[in-house]
Amino acid sequence: MLTKAQGKYIRSLSTTEGRREAGAFVIEGPKLMAEWLENAPDSVLAIYATNRWEMPRYAGRKFPEIQQLRESELAGLSQLRTPPAVLAVCRLPVPEPLLKTGWTLACEALQDPGNLGTILRIADWYGVGQVVCGEGSADFYNPKVVQAGMGAHLRIRTGCLPLADFLKESPLPVFAATLSGKNIYQTAPQHAGILLIGNESKGLSEAILQHATHQVMIPRRGGAESLNAAVATGILCDRLLAF
Amino acid sequence: MLTKAQGKYIRSLSTTEGRREAGAFVIEGPKLMAEWLENAPDSVLAIYATNRWEMPRYAGRKFPEIQQLRESELAGLSQLRTPPAVLAVCRLPVPEPLLKTGWTLACEALQDPGNLGTILRIADWYGVGQVVCGEGSADFYNPKVVQAGMGAHLRIRTGCLPLADFLKESPLPVFAATLSGKNIYQTAPQHAGILLIGNESKGLSEAILQHATHQVMIPRRGGAESLNAAVATGILCDRLLAF
Repeated sequence: MLTKAQGKYIRSLSTTEGRREAGAFVIEGPKLMAEWLENAPDSVLAIYATNRWEMPRYAGRKFPEIQQLRESELAGLSQLRTPPAVLAVCRLPVPEPLLKTGWTLACEALQDPGNLGTILRIADWYGVGQVVCGEGSADFYNPKVVQAGMGAHLRIRTGCLPLADFLKESPLPVFAATLSGKNIYQTAPQHAGILLIGNESKGLSEAILQHATHQVMIPRRGGAESLNAAVATGILCDRLLAF
Repeated sequence: MLTKAQGKYIRSLSTTEGRREAGAFVIEGPKLMAEWLENAPDSVLAIYATNRWEMPRYAGRKFPEIQQLRESELAGLSQLRTPPAVLAVCRLPVPEPLLKTGWTLACEALQDPGNLGTILRIADWYGVGQVVCGEGSADFYNPKVVQAGMGAHLRIRTGCLPLADFLKESPLPVFAATLSGKNIYQTAPQHAGILLIGNESKGLSEAILQHATHQVMIPRRGGAESLNAAVATGILCDRLLAF
């Protein structure tokens, strides 16, 4: 049985402001639940589950008691199209200092939370150390970002910052995908750098683009005007990142 | 002013059954509107717009009269988070016979409409001739597929079919991404073939996988378990398709 106050609290975590005030965010579904219980058990503050969910066994660890809810109660808290059998409130991590080496994906005003989460998942696949966002981007702990990230939040460093300053201070090569850039198939992979990702409809602003040391382009053979931001990021990571 | 019947009709087009019954689907926003007016003007049956939208000029062409709506009326019809200034009802195209040469992207039970639309957009970027879907996949004319496709529907052939039969009858090489496949960086690009794309959580079934003539894999360097289906499709197209 869920109290009114609990329901209100959990639903408040669907907004950036609510998460900031509470210092907490929500994860949904057995897959993310298992990721967090395994890799960040101390950050799990409360678990809500229906009797469809079975707690995985982790020898010798203590977790918060599971609060049993009815399907309809859990559905009322869920942000997913298909409400899951389990949902947890987790503590927002303390931001870690950003890395100054290796690869960074840097998003300018990336608005779609699904895209940002998918980009975190790409970073996690390719072993990119961190993803940073400038102003106007989706929030890293937006429920849709967490969902699409598939656990990447536990392995990738994230940061929100004034993007131009970050670029100005970095000695690393900065790559931007533009229509007039150099063919990506003829660009040598690098061991470290910053890959810029622009807004879904406007692309990169001039103010940010001027910090790019390399402009590259993915050759087009068909009629589409552009690729989805996350898809382009995946292709660029696949081509630009040296093993 | 929108009549009740018009509103009901347009809203009915948000379901696969409604579209099939009416033989029509909906496009939203000025960008798609311009694509359809330019490339398939005869399929545009009705246009609904607020006074924010201005009809582009196309010399010598006749279009259906624009029905002016209030913002709130149009918002009530829209499937988008941010309601657009224009929306149109278009005739579902008569299915064209499938191509037997070149590249085909073949989806097995791809459920997320955003993914299917993004895959159409990838096909459109790389000049892939057609995208086919087996049973249990999202519908090509689902509003979110149309939105994410960004006009690809006008250039890419699409088809729904029993996937195993389609594969059995094709003499082309069939590629599937699996964890134990051959490194994609060591796979020679091809001028024609079929790329299989699996369900978002279950991947490809054994029944479909047995038709693959080549198993490939995108090397992983980080901690993620997998890539998003559309992102993986983009990377595979970028690596497998010969110019």
